[in-house]
Amino acid sequence: MKETLHIFKVGGKVIDDDQELEAFLRSFAVVKSNKVLVHGGGKIATEIAERLGIKTQMVEGRRVTNQAMLEVVAMVYGGLVNKKMVAQLQGLGCNAIGLSGADMNYITATKRPTDPVDYGYVGDVQHVDSQALAGLLQQNITPILAPLTHDGKGQLLNTNADAIASAVAIALSEQFAVNLYYCFEKPGVLTDIEDDASLIENLTYDAYQSLKQQGVIANGMIPKLDNAFHTLQQGVSQVYIMHHQQIEHIQQHLTATTLCL
Amino acid sequence: MKETLHIFKVGGKVIDDDQELEAFLRSFAVVKSNKVLVHGGGKIATEIAERLGIKTQMVEGRRVTNQAMLEVVAMVYGGLVNKKMVAQLQGLGCNAIGLSGADMNYITATKRPTDPVDYGYVGDVQHVDSQALAGLLQQNITPILAPLTHDGKGQLLNTNADAIASAVAIALSEQFAVNLYYCFEKPGVLTDIEDDASLIENLTYDAYQSLKQQGVIANGMIPKLDNAFHTLQQGVSQVYIMHHQQIEHIQQHLTATTLCL
Repeated sequence: MKETLHIFKVGGKVIDDDQELEAFLRSFAVVKSNKVLVHGGGKIATEIAERLGIKTQMVEGRRVTNQAMLEVVAMVYGGLVNKKMVAQLQGLGCNAIGLSGADMNYITATKRPTDPVDYGYVGDVQHVDSQALAGLLQQNITPILAPLTHDGKGQLLNTNADAIASAVAIALSEQFAVNLYYCFEKPGVLTDIEDDASLIENLTYDAYQSLKQQGVIANGMIPKLDNAFHTLQQGVSQVYIMHHQQIEHIQQHLTATTLCL
Repeated sequence: MKETLHIFKVGGKVIDDDQELEAFLRSFAVVKSNKVLVHGGGKIATEIAERLGIKTQMVEGRRVTNQAMLEVVAMVYGGLVNKKMVAQLQGLGCNAIGLSGADMNYITATKRPTDPVDYGYVGDVQHVDSQALAGLLQQNITPILAPLTHDGKGQLLNTNADAIASAVAIALSEQFAVNLYYCFEKPGVLTDIEDDASLIENLTYDAYQSLKQQGVIANGMIPKLDNAFHTLQQGVSQVYIMHHQQIEHIQQHLTATTLCL
């Protein structure tokens, strides 16, 4: 039987709040068995860019990354956010290592085509070296993955953290039984975004298609769920959409949206 | 017989110049056998700090690191400089990994006492986990070390790159025959700082003491050479002080100051 691997993806909101982040990392540190954390960037990159006089431009929720912005995300994601988390986790007894896709060449990506939108130095995942990550896990080292990749020719690229989480989950599912947790600030997929009680506890692919058609599931949830169902189709064992505070309940009494095919 | 390990320390001047850096990395990438690169920060941290409205304060050539400055050095050293180098090396066929001391817990440090000077979040190396680095080298992965450590309790610390290079060299000399190269913008130790032809090709510890007393060797060279002789005393095989462009000649015809006990 395959060993279990828990992969958590946390987004901006947790990273922007020191107390929430510390609570999350405390729970993450005590998760038994193999684990990986994938983090986004939060508002910090936008704030630092602003203070440096670099304008942030977003198209469909994605950051346009020119040379100056690439330097900001390399600094903020790869340096500030990633290294602070790694140091915090070491303080909590979790032997973490922070990685960009360039480190150990573990993710190569291709620069996104400039048509219809030129996102600049933004990369779409091309290949994950699952052996590089599995080798760390075998040594009880916990990878903390920043949303940065590279093209294998010397160029860093800015890459969406959800996409990194799903690519890594798929690549590692050959060797591990992977549970993938997309964490955010809502309890899961809701039929009414204003009402946390409207949580869909189990969401099948068919039900998702129908709710999407009805407009009940919309906006930012669509790329997230498309991504998430794709990982299930590609061999990931379990996929959950949940509030980041639920991390302490993953072994029992988890409140989340569980996806099923 | 022990395998050879080459450890290079590069300072700010190389990092500040894209062309010099690329040339250095090209030569570094093709060095055969085990290798490690330790990098300083260059002027970029000072420039970014200034653009962010954070004042740089130096005491005896060392950066005073308050909370705001720690965030700058985590960003610049751990993110911008380190990750860009790693991506460049991958493009040159060298399987690099960028590390702060917190990553894999490979260096713990103690925050420097606040008396006589309060340097803030500056750490002095306490322990190097040589097995963590040796494990990477055995897998043909090349560590690229940023001048950042941690206290093991959750706190990142700013640490001098020369000190990291010497601590790592000493720790790895149990397992490897270590050649340590301190690279900078002069051909080595000079008797006349204005005259590159005044290079001292071989410098014994006794000669160093005498030149120091005569005031021939002074200022910034003293801590560097004290550090360097210390590593020789602690088991490092060879220590060189040299121009960074000499990296292409390390196998033969090296022009440098070679230290001897």
